Amino acid sequence: MQNTRPILAWETLLELAAVPGPRATLRDRLETALRRAIDDGTLPLGSALPPSRALAETLGVSRWVVTEVYGQLVAEGVLDARTGSATTVAVTAPTHTPGRGPRSTPAVTTPPRFDLRPGLPDLRGIPRARWAAALRAALTELPDQAFAADHGRGHDAARETLVTYLARSRRVAASAGDVVITHGATDGMRQLARELHRRGHRHLLVEDPSWPRLRDVAEESGLTVVSVPVDADGIDATALEAAASATGARAALLTPAHQFPLGAALSPQRREQIVSWARCADAVLIEDDYDAEFRYDRRPVAALQRLAPDRVVLIGSLSKSVAPGIGLGWMVLPPGFELTTATGIPSLIDQAALAHFVTHGDLERHLRRSRMRFRHRRGRLLDALDRELEDLRRTLGGLEVTGIAAGMHLVLSLPPGMDAADVTGRASAHSLALVPLRRYVLERPRPEALVLGYGDLDDALVDEAAALLAGVLRAAAAA
Amino acid sequence: MQNTRPILAWETLLELAAVPGPRATLRDRLETALRRAIDDGTLPLGSALPPSRALAETLGVSRWVVTEVYGQLVAEGVLDARTGSATTVAVTAPTHTPGRGPRSTPAVTTPPRFDLRPGLPDLRGIPRARWAAALRAALTELPDQAFAADHGRGHDAARETLVTYLARSRRVAASAGDVVITHGATDGMRQLARELHRRGHRHLLVEDPSWPRLRDVAEESGLTVVSVPVDADGIDATALEAAASATGARAALLTPAHQFPLGAALSPQRREQIVSWARCADAVLIEDDYDAEFRYDRRPVAALQRLAPDRVVLIGSLSKSVAPGIGLGWMVLPPGFELTTATGIPSLIDQAALAHFVTHGDLERHLRRSRMRFRHRRGRLLDALDRELEDLRRTLGGLEVTGIAAGMHLVLSLPPGMDAADVTGRASAHSLALVPLRRYVLERPRPEALVLGYGDLDDALVDEAAALLAGVLRAAAAA
Repeated sequence: MQNTRPILAWETLLELAAVPGPRATLRDRLETALRRAIDDGTLPLGSALPPSRALAETLGVSRWVVTEVYGQLVAEGVLDARTGSATTVAVTAPTHTPGRGPRSTPAVTTPPRFDLRPGLPDLRGIPRARWAAALRAALTELPDQAFAADHGRGHDAARETLVTYLARSRRVAASAGDVVITHGATDGMRQLARELHRRGHRHLLVEDPSWPRLRDVAEESGLTVVSVPVDADGIDATALEAAASATGARAALLTPAHQFPLGAALSPQRREQIVSWARCADAVLIEDDYDAEFRYDRRPVAALQRLAPDRVVLIGSLSKSVAPGIGLGWMVLPPGFELTTATGIPSLIDQAALAHFVTHGDLERHLRRSRMRFRHRRGRLLDALDRELEDLRRTLGGLEVTGIAAGMHLVLSLPPGMDAADVTGRASAHSLALVPLRRYVLERPRPEALVLGYGDLDDALVDEAAALLAGVLRAAAAA
Repeated sequence: MQNTRPILAWETLLELAAVPGPRATLRDRLETALRRAIDDGTLPLGSALPPSRALAETLGVSRWVVTEVYGQLVAEGVLDARTGSATTVAVTAPTHTPGRGPRSTPAVTTPPRFDLRPGLPDLRGIPRARWAAALRAALTELPDQAFAADHGRGHDAARETLVTYLARSRRVAASAGDVVITHGATDGMRQLARELHRRGHRHLLVEDPSWPRLRDVAEESGLTVVSVPVDADGIDATALEAAASATGARAALLTPAHQFPLGAALSPQRREQIVSWARCADAVLIEDDYDAEFRYDRRPVAALQRLAPDRVVLIGSLSKSVAPGIGLGWMVLPPGFELTTATGIPSLIDQAALAHFVTHGDLERHLRRSRMRFRHRRGRLLDALDRELEDLRRTLGGLEVTGIAAGMHLVLSLPPGMDAADVTGRASAHSLALVPLRRYVLERPRPEALVLGYGDLDDALVDEAAALLAGVLRAAAAA
């Protein structure tokens, strides 16, 4: 017998983790189970994990549960996910003190002190008082009957207010009847993906790299995602056409205002080209307008929707502008585009509060204040990185910062030969949470880099976080 | 050419109704289209409509859109839906004034003055101030990080509060970890039906008659509903077992506390029998606990869940106790029962408000007040019906009232030979909205009856509504 270590039966993986208490989500349980299997040596250094889709099927869980857990462990450097090869275990089991049994799982619930993961706005800045006022106004003003009815696409006042706001801020060309109120961008994408599938779509063109959640939702609805490359002008329109021809795809998910995570704005020429393609191919363009309000070099880029209201579905939410926990978003559909897959709309009170919040200028006031705050923090972070990384840039090369013109994150390239998973693993030991760019990659390898989010980073910790990052990079280079 | 009237091409039906403005929902458009086709003579008296499933497929819309519209028009007596035969047009086109063109569609948006349709609580009694206070407290007390995270099954405080409340009021045996916060009962049923389908279920046993919305949601998720008869002790447990054997169904949707719409409480013997069946057949029992809080003759019947926490999924919401528009509900799952179909949870603020509302006794205070209010209104309605229907009962027979021990509706049998669709049609001309029992029938014919809801009926209008109803019945009998 060559190998005496226990073999992990993947289908029993979740049973390993009945421990964290009944409140644990499936995601938490999978994460704990994987950590434990690594800690107790069941999965030694270098072990290959199944592809996320295969493991999801084996366990009977949604694929995003697996990708989220893999992503988390990759971000911490516990797993290694090199593009094109299997995800592997990147750490050795800790040495056990005899008689104490396996080390307890890392405290996954403690938030990191320095959180540089992208995706969150400044939660310290949530306009609580104004939102409370909007809720109070909604509760005072809504007629009794509003609490009863089936509101279809949403509360009329909210839809009317949103379409005016979107016309003003994003130059969206639509009428209130085209707006659907959703629980957020993911909810919108889910409704849309189901509808596309119902209409016979089987493929969705997506940017590579891109935010995984919306791709996963599309896959859960039965669509196969097709990778299209991205460069400094945004998604490659010619490659998109080629991928569409090759697969028959007639739908594309795009971030035209601010490509996630690389940061490009889709160029005017490409916009025209993609819209022309959509017209010829009778295709649907899905515009994920996730953080377009935060642009620091010029006025926000207008929505792609404006160029082709008959072809574009715009998806937006309050997640990046206010907070994800508020659970409100919207879709702007082409005129006559019906969503036949019934789904619930958010609380009427919340919708009426949204109408009040926008009508009274609270949203735009909050956005102005957030924009100033993020611009200031961005400047401070760039200064700190310049200061802290100066010698490393000289000695190691790389460490270039890109994607800074908008949003709440930037991309930091790593020196040649340095491994992002190694860096995130080392950083996590210092309570510094980082995400490698490769976490967003679908199938097209890119140079190693980190995506640094500063939306929810405490201003007082910016300098310390940059110094800590420099220390981690120095240690990674020396190893 | 025998027939010169235009033939309606069903697949173009929706195109007929592009008129009501872009804000119209699919449901509204279908309703308008059908009304118009009837008004302009395209669909003359007696024309057969396609079965709802067929029309839904032809139009590419969700089936509930069609059933809702048919149900509305049946309730108004515009359509006739006799069990076992096709839905037919029950009215003649109005005579047109020459030169004025077809009559405009009836003003469907005007709420009826006397609304006796079941399903709504008293919207005049919504605890606006207390809910506003709960929202304000939530916004003040929630930590920043609560606005960020993926909360899995919902906000912990809301789940902990709910499980305590449900143990107290419904004798539910569960831990907070078993609770999932939903957008309402329909949302819960949708998640559950998808999960059952994913696990290989293909049939769902349902009570006949029952509330159509939850059945439709199950069908949309790919489950075929199987009718099981209901009598004075609730669903027939022996018939349920037989239907399960015949179809292989291993899931049942039940209203044990208060059968909708007939009003029985499921007897203890049948509870035991159904739970035994579920254990032997490895089946899932779905308990739709829709209005169990409102019981007038004794303490509320305990939840079926208590008998078999390992077999029962309890679905509840604030729709009947507070208002549908609040968009909050819950599920209690068996321990270890995973929902792998990801879906969004409601606003964290709403969830924290729910926790506050329940913890501070506001929900139970509101329920006590509502119970008194409904009991009083019920008594008043029963008195008024006795008074107004006395002579009709003597001369025509029937007109018995049943199902009064709980909830916010009762069942009024019609005199022999009287047609409920005829009655609802006549009533609608007097702005009195009624629903025939047959609207809830799946395939087992029942004697003609009306389901009279008094949840949202203005107390000041009860006597007038009863008198109006008596007048309508008198006219129907005379016709």
